[in-house]
Amino acid sequence: MQRKIIPDVVQDQDLSFASPQSTVREAAQAMARRRISALMVLDRDRLVGIFTERDLAAKVVAMGLDPDTTLVSAVMTPDPDTLAPDDTAHQALTMMRAAGYRHLPVVDRSRVVGMVSVRDLYDSALLQLEDDIRNRDAFIHGVGYGLGN
Amino acid sequence: MQRKIIPDVVQDQDLSFASPQSTVREAAQAMARRRISALMVLDRDRLVGIFTERDLAAKVVAMGLDPDTTLVSAVMTPDPDTLAPDDTAHQALTMMRAAGYRHLPVVDRSRVVGMVSVRDLYDSALLQLEDDIRNRDAFIHGVGYGLGN
Repeated sequence: MQRKIIPDVVQDQDLSFASPQSTVREAAQAMARRRISALMVLDRDRLVGIFTERDLAAKVVAMGLDPDTTLVSAVMTPDPDTLAPDDTAHQALTMMRAAGYRHLPVVDRSRVVGMVSVRDLYDSALLQLEDDIRNRDAFIHGVGYGLGN
Repeated sequence: MQRKIIPDVVQDQDLSFASPQSTVREAAQAMARRRISALMVLDRDRLVGIFTERDLAAKVVAMGLDPDTTLVSAVMTPDPDTLAPDDTAHQALTMMRAAGYRHLPVVDRSRVVGMVSVRDLYDSALLQLEDDIRNRDAFIHGVGYGLGN
């Protein structure tokens, strides 16, 4: 069976958000405290961007901007691609590998319901293939026993 | 066949290093220029650490340190675990998933010869499993034809 983003890959996540008006320093502190590498950026309840460790390194520190005066809205990745809860893990992994994404928000009728990392999807894809192999092995052994008797 | 780190997962990489005496700003600029998220830190030819976007976010920006005066040696992850060229991709993936690593240097008799991302390893593991499935399918179809005739 095809695994779906929700509930097979993620469910009941404790989500982490930043406001577009947060400073980059505040966002970095939130990421460090929660040991995560990306924050979804919400304006009221609307997803307006995603801010990642990559944005912090490449757009703030490498460019010499001040983390205390630079707002998340200025350096986030705006209007990110998103996944739907019933997208398949396989579709999502293919898309993220092609685009080089490490995280994507999961949006259900404009409401943010989760965040998926490419790592979650790889784990899901490996489990799926391991299942597929077990099924084939069961079939092969079944046939083998049949032939041997 | 078991895939090995070299040559099956990576080979002929263009490696990126930082010196322990580089500033964090210089390291961030090198990472941004090359679109990579980790640098190996070499003191002369000896691997002494690894510096990642995570170190930058959590140990520098979140802590309020100045990227222009903070040296890589002060905030890198010192003495990182490493892989050997003939470790299997499967061993390496198991280790990196367990420890939560995203990158590991590949060291051959104390010489740094590569860097592997957990993503490289996932891709390799998926290829391996897809091969395994194809082999089983070929066997199943072979047996199937045999039974049918």
